[in-house]
Amino acid sequence: MEQNSAIILAAGAGKRMKSSKPKVLCEVLLKPMLGWVLTSCEQAGIPHVCVVTGHGREQVEAYLDGKYETAVQQEQKGTGHAVLCAETFLKQHLDGDVVVLCGDAPFMDGQTIQRAHEYHQQQGNAVTVISANLEQPFGYGRIIRDNGQVTGIVEQKDATEEQKQITEVNSGTYWFKAADLLQVLTEIKPNNAQGEYYLTDAVELLLQQGKKAGAYQAEDANVILGANDRKTLYRLNTIAREKILEQHMENGVEFVCTDGVVIGPDVVIGMETQILPGTILKGKTTIGTQCVIGPNSLVKDTTVGDRCVLNATQAYDSIIHEDVTIGPFVQIRPNCEIHHKAHIGDFVEVKNSTIGAGTAVAHLTYVGDSDVGSNVNFGCGVVTVNYDGVNKHRTTIEDDAFIGCNTNLVAPVRVGKGAYTAAGSTITKDVPDGALGIERAQQTIKEGFATRKLKGRKKKA
Amino acid sequence: MEQNSAIILAAGAGKRMKSSKPKVLCEVLLKPMLGWVLTSCEQAGIPHVCVVTGHGREQVEAYLDGKYETAVQQEQKGTGHAVLCAETFLKQHLDGDVVVLCGDAPFMDGQTIQRAHEYHQQQGNAVTVISANLEQPFGYGRIIRDNGQVTGIVEQKDATEEQKQITEVNSGTYWFKAADLLQVLTEIKPNNAQGEYYLTDAVELLLQQGKKAGAYQAEDANVILGANDRKTLYRLNTIAREKILEQHMENGVEFVCTDGVVIGPDVVIGMETQILPGTILKGKTTIGTQCVIGPNSLVKDTTVGDRCVLNATQAYDSIIHEDVTIGPFVQIRPNCEIHHKAHIGDFVEVKNSTIGAGTAVAHLTYVGDSDVGSNVNFGCGVVTVNYDGVNKHRTTIEDDAFIGCNTNLVAPVRVGKGAYTAAGSTITKDVPDGALGIERAQQTIKEGFATRKLKGRKKKA
Amino acid sequence: MEQNSAIILAAGAGKRMKSSKPKVLCEVLLKPMLGWVLTSCEQAGIPHVCVVTGHGREQVEAYLDGKYETAVQQEQKGTGHAVLCAETFLKQHLDGDVVVLCGDAPFMDGQTIQRAHEYHQQQGNAVTVISANLEQPFGYGRIIRDNGQVTGIVEQKDATEEQKQITEVNSGTYWFKAADLLQVLTEIKPNNAQGEYYLTDAVELLLQQGKKAGAYQAEDANVILGANDRKTLYRLNTIAREKILEQHMENGVEFVCTDGVVIGPDVVIGMETQILPGTILKGKTTIGTQCVIGPNSLVKDTTVGDRCVLNATQAYDSIIHEDVTIGPFVQIRPNCEIHHKAHIGDFVEVKNSTIGAGTAVAHLTYVGDSDVGSNVNFGCGVVTVNYDGVNKHRTTIEDDAFIGCNTNLVAPVRVGKGAYTAAGSTITKDVPDGALGIERAQQTIKEGFATRKLKGRKKKA
Repeated sequence: MEQNSAIILAAGAGKRMKSSKPKVLCEVLLKPMLGWVLTSCEQAGIPHVCVVTGHGREQVEAYLDGKYETAVQQEQKGTGHAVLCAETFLKQHLDGDVVVLCGDAPFMDGQTIQRAHEYHQQQGNAVTVISANLEQPFGYGRIIRDNGQVTGIVEQKDATEEQKQITEVNSGTYWFKAADLLQVLTEIKPNNAQGEYYLTDAVELLLQQGKKAGAYQAEDANVILGANDRKTLYRLNTIAREKILEQHMENGVEFVCTDGVVIGPDVVIGMETQILPGTILKGKTTIGTQCVIGPNSLVKDTTVGDRCVLNATQAYDSIIHEDVTIGPFVQIRPNCEIHHKAHIGDFVEVKNSTIGAGTAVAHLTYVGDSDVGSNVNFGCGVVTVNYDGVNKHRTTIEDDAFIGCNTNLVAPVRVGKGAYTAAGSTITKDVPDGALGIERAQQTIKEGFATRKLKGRKKKA
Repeated sequence: MEQNSAIILAAGAGKRMKSSKPKVLCEVLLKPMLGWVLTSCEQAGIPHVCVVTGHGREQVEAYLDGKYETAVQQEQKGTGHAVLCAETFLKQHLDGDVVVLCGDAPFMDGQTIQRAHEYHQQQGNAVTVISANLEQPFGYGRIIRDNGQVTGIVEQKDATEEQKQITEVNSGTYWFKAADLLQVLTEIKPNNAQGEYYLTDAVELLLQQGKKAGAYQAEDANVILGANDRKTLYRLNTIAREKILEQHMENGVEFVCTDGVVIGPDVVIGMETQILPGTILKGKTTIGTQCVIGPNSLVKDTTVGDRCVLNATQAYDSIIHEDVTIGPFVQIRPNCEIHHKAHIGDFVEVKNSTIGAGTAVAHLTYVGDSDVGSNVNFGCGVVTVNYDGVNKHRTTIEDDAFIGCNTNLVAPVRVGKGAYTAAGSTITKDVPDGALGIERAQQTIKEGFATRKLKGRKKKA
Repeated sequence: MEQNSAIILAAGAGKRMKSSKPKVLCEVLLKPMLGWVLTSCEQAGIPHVCVVTGHGREQVEAYLDGKYETAVQQEQKGTGHAVLCAETFLKQHLDGDVVVLCGDAPFMDGQTIQRAHEYHQQQGNAVTVISANLEQPFGYGRIIRDNGQVTGIVEQKDATEEQKQITEVNSGTYWFKAADLLQVLTEIKPNNAQGEYYLTDAVELLLQQGKKAGAYQAEDANVILGANDRKTLYRLNTIAREKILEQHMENGVEFVCTDGVVIGPDVVIGMETQILPGTILKGKTTIGTQCVIGPNSLVKDTTVGDRCVLNATQAYDSIIHEDVTIGPFVQIRPNCEIHHKAHIGDFVEVKNSTIGAGTAVAHLTYVGDSDVGSNVNFGCGVVTVNYDGVNKHRTTIEDDAFIGCNTNLVAPVRVGKGAYTAAGSTITKDVPDGALGIERAQQTIKEGFATRKLKGRKKKA
């Protein structure tokens, strides 16, 4: 595939979506449709990709984050015009084949693109349309064949009664010999009511030149699906969601009820892991084997080791090693690494911190900007005081330390190996290894105080 | 509509519901069915409404909260008898038309009521039945027409084979000329097996007097639906839920998966807002545009501004301004106002308080009965000590203040503008503007204490 | 049933499940399939049960926890061989009847087993197959009858075209006269491609001996269902889930939307209780009447009294009395008893503790290993310091006490009746009845400190 390339059409607006985002950034399973198409290019092994932007160009470029070439289509004058806007890119890759993809057709998968290319090469085609077979082809362009050989594509409105019976339709994705595409691109004319330049016309132009056109029929007809409004976008979400859930079941993932379970297309889950209802796994998340995730967990761009529990937990951009139990009601914020056999209990937030192996943070605790060793025990209500109102500082807790309940650790501060802090202490100075740090006044008793104070109080039961 | 009125029949018990509530208080999308009918009257612009109560009268009256007139039907002797119980109300509105509605038919919408009334007036009818066309009309009263003109209503059991083929059925909702209704009401006789007075007979009596009867066929046949048991009630919930979700999609609201999403009929949501699974929006809730609500949020009677995030958050009877981020795991209890760009982080409860613009309450904090200025920073674990065991007091925190971690603010107390409280301090006296309030003992170190203390402790990893 | 017995075949692996668990431990509604079958035996009143284990024998025995007899099938050589492995058990119960059950057919219910036995006895059968009528019988063994009398069972592959039309199929569950079974068991031969001993052959052998065979057709054809992979297991979950939800609706339980609601087979729920989306009720959980459970609650092996609220709450192995309100965001860990009218508010964990009647634990509190009296008020942020790094100790709080915010109660410690602890105090010594316990330094003010300290700080709004 070394010399091959892809042009992704991504210039459309999201007007009927009632969205201020360009249409290609509308999401299927929490991933922009453009992202699906980029992943497909990657899976197909296409090294050079150019995205043609237009509406919401800045947003698309922000999403691409400089990782892909772009071309700009200033005015929306049809798919042929859009490809022409990528002329510079096209000229750089004239030796190979180029696939033109719709940025809003997320189910055009890498395998289909690849197989279509193999077919394209075997047949020596100048152009190969990816087609699909639809029971209800109404509205789509039909693939016209003569003795199996493609002789044209005819739009719904131009089709004869006989042609309307054809169920093989155009997906809008085409492999071209790049040089052939470049050569006919300027010959496309806007001879239609809309005055637009249609890429479909390239097929006819190539055929007129005696070049060979073919159609590769995709196994899964869903490759042609796109969305124009929120309802059809929701339908794409539903189709993708069910397909992905089924794949995970086939892989040995366990579900008692998939309601509210949303698993993104790039998520990997190990065998025997149980996913409970209401769980969202998104981005580049990887879950090990024999985990229990959920109910109601949300995991994004996080790696979770084998045999972990994430109960009612939200975790972002972090690494969780094996045999870690978390939850319920926990937030792991970005940039955490939690080592094996650690336990994070209820109402705990961990942020930008390392938690050592076997360490327990059992309840109502905030660990932020901290480096915590192994086998440390946090009492309940501990706070790493990482912010002084102006700057953030780090807290260091060495192995085997014991942090008393409701302790404040005022960073920068270090609690030594095997050291102890007394409950209710605000620790502002380092505690040496094996020492006790304590900040506390004397407890005094005022007899009879409460009897007087609470006089007239109401009882509930 | 000035002189028109409505009588809502709401006297039935909920026996087959296995409910101690009267049937009209059983809920569809977390709103009592009677509430749906009252809203329809309001939307139809009917100024005078009388609710006929019976079973669970006190509960119904408590729900109505004095906002509507009521009449009492002591014994359940049929719909005709129920209307007669509202005779006094009827006599006060004799100049206009009166619509008789079933309090347990929640989908009889305002537009249908209004259009039926327009038809009623155009035709000069004494009575206009609202009808619906059902594919499966079995069990319902059929509308008998002769050359299009309504000539009667026949019940299932009295219908001839030919009449059983009729698919236009009686919804049980009728517009009457009020004077005509009053006049025939006393003529209805309990000539049936149950010995009940049926309002349906009023139609025949009016026809016998040479008055004109008509039927207005509702566009949506669901207007006739009621529920007798939990299963049919659940069916109403499902129908309503799907219809409302579809409407929000049409309005540009985004859903990746609607599982567990319940949106009440009076909720308003702006374009491009994303509603994630497991989210319940109820009561008079309004959500702005471009928000992200959920997963697993519950919002009741709350106004949320544009571009807010409510992640795993419950909010009740409050106002949240634009660009506020909340969650995960937050409760906003009644009577809060949270100003723009505020941030409420995990494990925070806010109650009966104002939070100023740009203020951050990031973690494990309780803000109750407090007036908090703008750009205040709360450390983790702060508690406004609002209750002394007998009385509740308010806390005041001025703009730009910095509240240290695990601070107790013992109300009544004031932290001044730009003031600071030290971590771990219990603040019982006001802190002046720009000052530091600190309550702390000296930190001491006991060398070797922990080494002795923790001897023999087990390690997990 | 005194002398009757059951043999449950539970030796199979879960290979196609991609599970390291033996197949019978794979779960339907969070209960192992074997557990369903054991419950059915119990409901059928069968006093003697033997489980034949094989694959994952240790796991199955761990699950049985010594409560049932077991026999071991070392090699998987067919169902006939499996029963033979229980020969010792069988010989102990030769006077009665024995039912042979599949440990992976969870829907074979107690009533069907019992009715089949009644039929078995009435007919004086040596063997009675439990059969089911299937519209799509393909793949199942067919029951062959002559004039109604069972004359054999023929497998799919051996069936004639005419026999393939038979819709009555073998469930794999059989009642035998124990003595008859024992006698033919050794006569079964592995005359088949797999070289296995099939229990089905026992039917033919008994018929050959002139004994009587019968078939009892189950009312619900689902009794025959089993699962071989995750997808069919998921189907069992779905069937069971919908059936159980429907039963609860019939019992007067209210649902607005059942998405994400999973209710185990042994859960009891009272009338008028509302179950909100995302709620999991498992194990031996009992919920009273007029409760509101959910959204997003998880309750395991817990008894909940009437009129309780469990909002976004997880509760395990505990007892909650009537009129208790809990949540949102609460965890009740095992071995708690919470008395009537108590209130447990947001971000509270209770563990191994008793909470007295009318006591309020409103926010951000940990009550562990504690005995708390009635009408106690916990301020926010209270921690029972139950662990000193080596041992756990209990905390005692007497009736009517008032625990100040952010108090640490360092166990073992006792707060007396009607006593008071001051906010922010670490209480290490007992507080007498009616007294105040306080540990606090003097609050000091440093004028201008904050103004200097916070210079240059950025504002968000």
